[in-house]
Amino acid sequence: MAETDALPVVRSVAALRQTLSDWRRQGFTVGFVPTMGALHEGHLTLVREAGQRADRVVASVFVNPAQFAAHEDLGTYPRQEARDAELLAGAGCHLLFAPSVEEMYPAGATTTISVGGPAEGLEGEFRPQMFGGVALVVTKLLNQARADVAVFGEKDWQQLMVVRRLVRDLDIPTEIVGSPTMRDGHGLALSSRNAYLSEAELEVARQLNGVLAAAGAAAASGGSLDVVERDAREALLRAGFSHVDYVAVRRADDLAVFEGGVADAPGRILAAAWLGRTRLIDNMAVAAPS
Amino acid sequence: MAETDALPVVRSVAALRQTLSDWRRQGFTVGFVPTMGALHEGHLTLVREAGQRADRVVASVFVNPAQFAAHEDLGTYPRQEARDAELLAGAGCHLLFAPSVEEMYPAGATTTISVGGPAEGLEGEFRPQMFGGVALVVTKLLNQARADVAVFGEKDWQQLMVVRRLVRDLDIPTEIVGSPTMRDGHGLALSSRNAYLSEAELEVARQLNGVLAAAGAAAASGGSLDVVERDAREALLRAGFSHVDYVAVRRADDLAVFEGGVADAPGRILAAAWLGRTRLIDNMAVAAPS
Repeated sequence: MAETDALPVVRSVAALRQTLSDWRRQGFTVGFVPTMGALHEGHLTLVREAGQRADRVVASVFVNPAQFAAHEDLGTYPRQEARDAELLAGAGCHLLFAPSVEEMYPAGATTTISVGGPAEGLEGEFRPQMFGGVALVVTKLLNQARADVAVFGEKDWQQLMVVRRLVRDLDIPTEIVGSPTMRDGHGLALSSRNAYLSEAELEVARQLNGVLAAAGAAAASGGSLDVVERDAREALLRAGFSHVDYVAVRRADDLAVFEGGVADAPGRILAAAWLGRTRLIDNMAVAAPS
Repeated sequence: MAETDALPVVRSVAALRQTLSDWRRQGFTVGFVPTMGALHEGHLTLVREAGQRADRVVASVFVNPAQFAAHEDLGTYPRQEARDAELLAGAGCHLLFAPSVEEMYPAGATTTISVGGPAEGLEGEFRPQMFGGVALVVTKLLNQARADVAVFGEKDWQQLMVVRRLVRDLDIPTEIVGSPTMRDGHGLALSSRNAYLSEAELEVARQLNGVLAAAGAAAASGGSLDVVERDAREALLRAGFSHVDYVAVRRADDLAVFEGGVADAPGRILAAAWLGRTRLIDNMAVAAPS
């Protein structure tokens, strides 16, 4: 076990299990925060949330190749373990699990998981390999850690719903907690990929949140969802986004298309849009303006 | 918790987890034997094996609809819970988990698992839905029970290899143990489906084991696998089997076809054959005659 600025780091599943087993023998409950590193204040909120709910917190940093397509940014995704470890320690994390790709995916693995339901459409349409990769790595990490509770960000809302479904369907004995999206002073959802943005792109990115809030309010007020979604897409392009993958108002829990009106069930508005070569996502509850 | 001839029975996942959590608090290790009921001496050997390896043994009886195709024998598969409970108690089992279909598969479940590798071909070819169903129910049961060790019969050799791969690939923290096939005095592998056989069919069924042993010996002696498999298939039909799904000599661990000779890796000969409407399977190690 190596130390990085006072935060213990383990790199093997066996070492992770040993530490967690020691904790449990001492009667500690365990909270878990899986990340892909490149940590920002949003991740640290998850760590603090886990610390509120469990005696000991373990975070993982693993850039999961299984959830990237060949053309995506696996190679350039920011990696900064020493800084991540420092930030985690400051947020009250007790252990960093930072496995290699070989440790997570030994040669000869063949099992795949398909979550269906909330994994279909939206991100599942534009990044067809993602949720299979997420389901596999989350199942592995939760089985490795056997934590009492795991915290995921609402920033990746569809992923959170996919993880909830996965954990329920496979009876994984870990409570899944969603933590609200952290935003900068302009409402931009914090994301590791914001680091890719130029100053000019950052100005555009900061309008995503406002466009979604207005569209969500229009939907909550009874606007036709088709019209609301089309208007929001056009607003994003006018704001300077280069391309919009989707803007969609969906049922919040299973991401299904509303058959009746948005009053039938809690709703969520979700979007994915591009600024040059950077793809941003955001989402929020659909609620009438207060 | 109901009692059946002194064996406690739980029917909900919550009740199962409560009992197992109590056991663990008392420092007991837990062994698990998943079954579809209709127990015979082969199952009881698995229970005794689990009892050798853990302080407490829980068995499940659940006829898993997910692993039967529409035309298969789900409806007629023998169900005899009171007798099963009595047999389990006699073999040293401490708890029976007998959930309903609704308890195991709540409405709205969408997740599926594909193991690939050892699940491809043989049973995977003739019963295409089976290993997906097995993978799902085994993952759920192992996550529900979180046992230290689970015992599976070598009678279902391919299933045992599929479960080993599944557990390794998903990092399920349960040790998987295979237990040798129990046979009657004539070498017939014990199976719940033997109950379907008439006296005349039973006489034929008892030749399966000998045909496979001879074919395995021929393969081990360097015979062409194509010829060995064809000869064994013909021998089964001559013996009175109505149809042979497959006789195959494969690598024992991943069920892959041998590229070189059988000396390259441990081998297994496996077969599935029909007697009227009853389908029997058997397998054994490929080893030179002693």
